[in-house]
Amino acid sequence: MIKFNISDTDDDHLHRIVCEKIDNLTKPRGSLGRLETLAAQICMIQRSTSPVLKNPFNILFAADHGILDEGVSVSPKEVTWQQSYHFMKGGAGISYLCRQHGFRLMVVDAGIDHDMDYGSGIINMKIRRGTDNFIDRAAMTDSEMELCLERGAACTDMAAAEGCNIISFGEMGSGNTTASAAWMASLTDIPPERCVGAGAGLDSNGISHKLNVLRRALDNYPGDHSVTEIMARFGGFEMVMATGAMLRAAELRMTILVDGFIMTNCILAASKLYPQVLKYAIFGHCGDESGHRLLLDWLGASPLLSLGMRLGEGSGAVCAFPVVDSAVRMINEMDSFGGASVTKYF
Amino acid sequence: MIKFNISDTDDDHLHRIVCEKIDNLTKPRGSLGRLETLAAQICMIQRSTSPVLKNPFNILFAADHGILDEGVSVSPKEVTWQQSYHFMKGGAGISYLCRQHGFRLMVVDAGIDHDMDYGSGIINMKIRRGTDNFIDRAAMTDSEMELCLERGAACTDMAAAEGCNIISFGEMGSGNTTASAAWMASLTDIPPERCVGAGAGLDSNGISHKLNVLRRALDNYPGDHSVTEIMARFGGFEMVMATGAMLRAAELRMTILVDGFIMTNCILAASKLYPQVLKYAIFGHCGDESGHRLLLDWLGASPLLSLGMRLGEGSGAVCAFPVVDSAVRMINEMDSFGGASVTKYF
Repeated sequence: MIKFNISDTDDDHLHRIVCEKIDNLTKPRGSLGRLETLAAQICMIQRSTSPVLKNPFNILFAADHGILDEGVSVSPKEVTWQQSYHFMKGGAGISYLCRQHGFRLMVVDAGIDHDMDYGSGIINMKIRRGTDNFIDRAAMTDSEMELCLERGAACTDMAAAEGCNIISFGEMGSGNTTASAAWMASLTDIPPERCVGAGAGLDSNGISHKLNVLRRALDNYPGDHSVTEIMARFGGFEMVMATGAMLRAAELRMTILVDGFIMTNCILAASKLYPQVLKYAIFGHCGDESGHRLLLDWLGASPLLSLGMRLGEGSGAVCAFPVVDSAVRMINEMDSFGGASVTKYF
Repeated sequence: MIKFNISDTDDDHLHRIVCEKIDNLTKPRGSLGRLETLAAQICMIQRSTSPVLKNPFNILFAADHGILDEGVSVSPKEVTWQQSYHFMKGGAGISYLCRQHGFRLMVVDAGIDHDMDYGSGIINMKIRRGTDNFIDRAAMTDSEMELCLERGAACTDMAAAEGCNIISFGEMGSGNTTASAAWMASLTDIPPERCVGAGAGLDSNGISHKLNVLRRALDNYPGDHSVTEIMARFGGFEMVMATGAMLRAAELRMTILVDGFIMTNCILAASKLYPQVLKYAIFGHCGDESGHRLLLDWLGASPLLSLGMRLGEGSGAVCAFPVVDSAVRMINEMDSFGGASVTKYF
């Protein structure tokens, strides 16, 4: 299986210099709160006291899920391919957010159940047309799972080749909150009923049904709960691809912006393989999908935004970019007390 | 006293049309969370289904406080004038945040205790060199208080003349968290000990002393607790000026971005005079100053960001601007289901 060579970001000496620089900026010590800790994190990622954010990309992986046959979503399967075209045309949520914040949007067919026209600009990384229904069997084979990791890494390489050093990942895939709930229940000690939410808009009956489906699928799973097995068992192609893409991003010392419930499950899986990937991760937002807050807490993550969003697509990560940008500008653009003829006041 | 003619923003017919437009954008209904409610609020403010944000300004009012003589702050008085120049020179926190988000920064001398050089670009609205010590007397006279409201309104007029329709306000003034705590304790039913915090960086002894000073000042106040009396009694010039500026902004149907603890006290005072001003207000962030969260809750406000910031200057309001911009872009740039050939999925 593909290996990732991810460095730890720790460096006591550099960290001390960075903290001194931040503490000497013209403001009461600590008064820029999260901007200060974010700046320090990015300094450590980039091994620099003057980090820069370059050519941000949002890579959006799209795929279909066999579990949709169990009636777990209000969102019909055709929405996956329809929305994938729509992202490229510029009228979707993630389209305008990427324009607003200067992100390149890359839409990847990881396994959409439709014959796609790649002349549209959608990148062809299709494994096949949708996963199998994981209610009683694996969503994908082991070799498909490995191929997803590789192709995800290849997508990050494409962004890196364009000079990108800060990257977010998004998804589109009817049924993927159910797959994510299966990952969460399998990879943490959080009980299934707390991993399941409304997805694109289920009512309480719909959520109960989704939980029953999840329980049956978990009961039918005879495996050893290794991360790679969980990924292959419950899919989807877009999720495993995002996991591989995140690991490659960390290997390349990029800053990773983590989006909502589904992408948080992907960084969870990534961290089970390589715990140090979390040093590269900034959690963009806490979404409205039940389970997301719990999972963030479980990971010890402090999301930057909490705006009740649950769109996916990378929207919460891209929305959080200006805060990250503010952190980097702080350390590069603010004067120090000595330079500014201001009495140090703290 | 100056009067403000502030319209209510309610309009059931327009609100219904706006909500229909938002619900028909290509996303699960409600899935953009706060962006959707923000968009609706700005539509109502601008009486339009296609609102625009134009020429944002951050007006920063600076002044000194006589209460500083009681030792309530770690920040010495000269920091007020030093930082005011520094804002103009571009190296302060608010300077780079305004550059980042396209805000014009207007620094106003509301009552700095220093002979300022207005060739620097600082606007001269000085009432006098600092308020009186409100420990046992009024910080300013009634006519000074009225002049502050008028001059604040005049500052907003200057921004409006430049085409501004979204505006934030900031402050600089050593001692002004103490003045703000006095406003909060006087204008709400929240007890003084919950209104007092660390300001620019007091330790627990410092906070105890600040609370004692606040209690003595409140005990020594013989007045009737009308808003105008509270403003004159406890000052400062920059706070009353910001209050007048906010009221004029609402009169002009501008969107008001509210910053931290001090500016939240200003909109509190403004709302005691004209409750409908709150319809124009978006609360940018919940700061780290103890009491801010309480006051936001008291006002029923949901701040957009919560990043542990406590810099003032308008920093939290300006940082929140991209979220507001995202809301407006959502309603203007996203396709509807009909236009995009995407199956409506909720």
